[in-house]
Amino acid sequence: MPEGIRFAVLTISDRSSRGERADESGPLLGRIVFEWGGEVVLSEILPDERAVIRAELERIADGGLADVVLTTGGTGFAPRDVTPEATKDVMDREAPGLVEAMRADSQKKTATAMLSRAVAGIRKATLIMNLPGSPRAARENLEVVLPALAHAVELLRGGVGDCGKP
Amino acid sequence: MPEGIRFAVLTISDRSSRGERADESGPLLGRIVFEWGGEVVLSEILPDERAVIRAELERIADGGLADVVLTTGGTGFAPRDVTPEATKDVMDREAPGLVEAMRADSQKKTATAMLSRAVAGIRKATLIMNLPGSPRAARENLEVVLPALAHAVELLRGGVGDCGKP
Amino acid sequence: MPEGIRFAVLTISDRSSRGERADESGPLLGRIVFEWGGEVVLSEILPDERAVIRAELERIADGGLADVVLTTGGTGFAPRDVTPEATKDVMDREAPGLVEAMRADSQKKTATAMLSRAVAGIRKATLIMNLPGSPRAARENLEVVLPALAHAVELLRGGVGDCGKP
Repeated sequence: MPEGIRFAVLTISDRSSRGERADESGPLLGRIVFEWGGEVVLSEILPDERAVIRAELERIADGGLADVVLTTGGTGFAPRDVTPEATKDVMDREAPGLVEAMRADSQKKTATAMLSRAVAGIRKATLIMNLPGSPRAARENLEVVLPALAHAVELLRGGVGDCGKP
Repeated sequence: MPEGIRFAVLTISDRSSRGERADESGPLLGRIVFEWGGEVVLSEILPDERAVIRAELERIADGGLADVVLTTGGTGFAPRDVTPEATKDVMDREAPGLVEAMRADSQKKTATAMLSRAVAGIRKATLIMNLPGSPRAARENLEVVLPALAHAVELLRGGVGDCGKP
Repeated sequence: MPEGIRFAVLTISDRSSRGERADESGPLLGRIVFEWGGEVVLSEILPDERAVIRAELERIADGGLADVVLTTGGTGFAPRDVTPEATKDVMDREAPGLVEAMRADSQKKTATAMLSRAVAGIRKATLIMNLPGSPRAARENLEVVLPALAHAVELLRGGVGDCGKP
């Protein structure tokens, strides 16, 4: 595993951002990352506002503050769910395989998994991945991609990958 | 199931729109929707013209005429197949999980299923889903997503979803 | 199989284009295509430069030089990997089912398969598909889509497909 993979965890929820609802998914993701050996350098709660989410993703990636940003929430069909749109606004390069793998796995457990509109992509050297808002689904989806994350970050940092690049 | 889910069924086919070929898929989808408990409020046949398809999708979604629009046809590799492009033109928010689930299922039955270029997305409060033109494939693909549709429409209407939103 | 399906094979690699690394994947893909009954009309090595890749894809498709372009390399997370971006720049119509099928298959073998950012799409009458840079993964992914390729090219050429089009 690359030294010190740094994670930011962004909980996207109007109600949690107003303090009306406890954020369960954010702390849960932080714990999984910690147990896996990663470092959570930032965790925060944002409202379902496309411009707010976008600005924070830009700040984190452009400042090189984290290697991986995990968002949780705002990926569904509710009118205010815009996390994937904010993520697409800022990504330089899309990484569809990560979310395809998440959904293919969730699909085995529940039909409504196909309603996840999560996307994943790269901005500068930071990987941004959307996870669902429900704690159980967020945990399961993160566990699907964890086995590929160390290699992903190594490549993003310009290390030699399985193709001998650069 | 939410009260009265309203469906529009659009058959996209140059030949059927000219009356040279009977439309089998449209009526078949209508029957499946009816048996499932949905209401078909509109069904029509359109030519493979991107601007025509786009205008009709806009009219339906912007007028709030249907909760779900099913298109059938125009999703393949033929030169005139532009249903996905017309759908992308009008969608506010993409919903890739629905078409991934359809293709993953079809893939088990036939290799050419991977040639379906179908997309799904949301415009305003209307979900638009492309289905293939062949009656058998259209039916099979619709059956894959039906179990998630009631929840999808409930969320689109702003009802409380599994994340407690809004 | 349609008469004489013509393939172009583009190896995308900075190091191979500088002669610092032998190109294994390009010749391997050429051999598979030949054994399958296709015709390799062009094979070349390009650097990981978005504008260079884009211009060559345009030249091939706009000139009608090949029915199928296979690229190998530049689909991962390394900073210089931009093959999918160059491909998206030039495609008229996306064909996501092909790369979904590739990744779903690779996924069974190795977790890092989900890091492939490969895309597929159509420009004019030419199908462009990205394959990974590793020879083994490129071969496996090509073998997943080969069974659908003859039908794809027949449709692109305007032949009658399974929907009776055009």
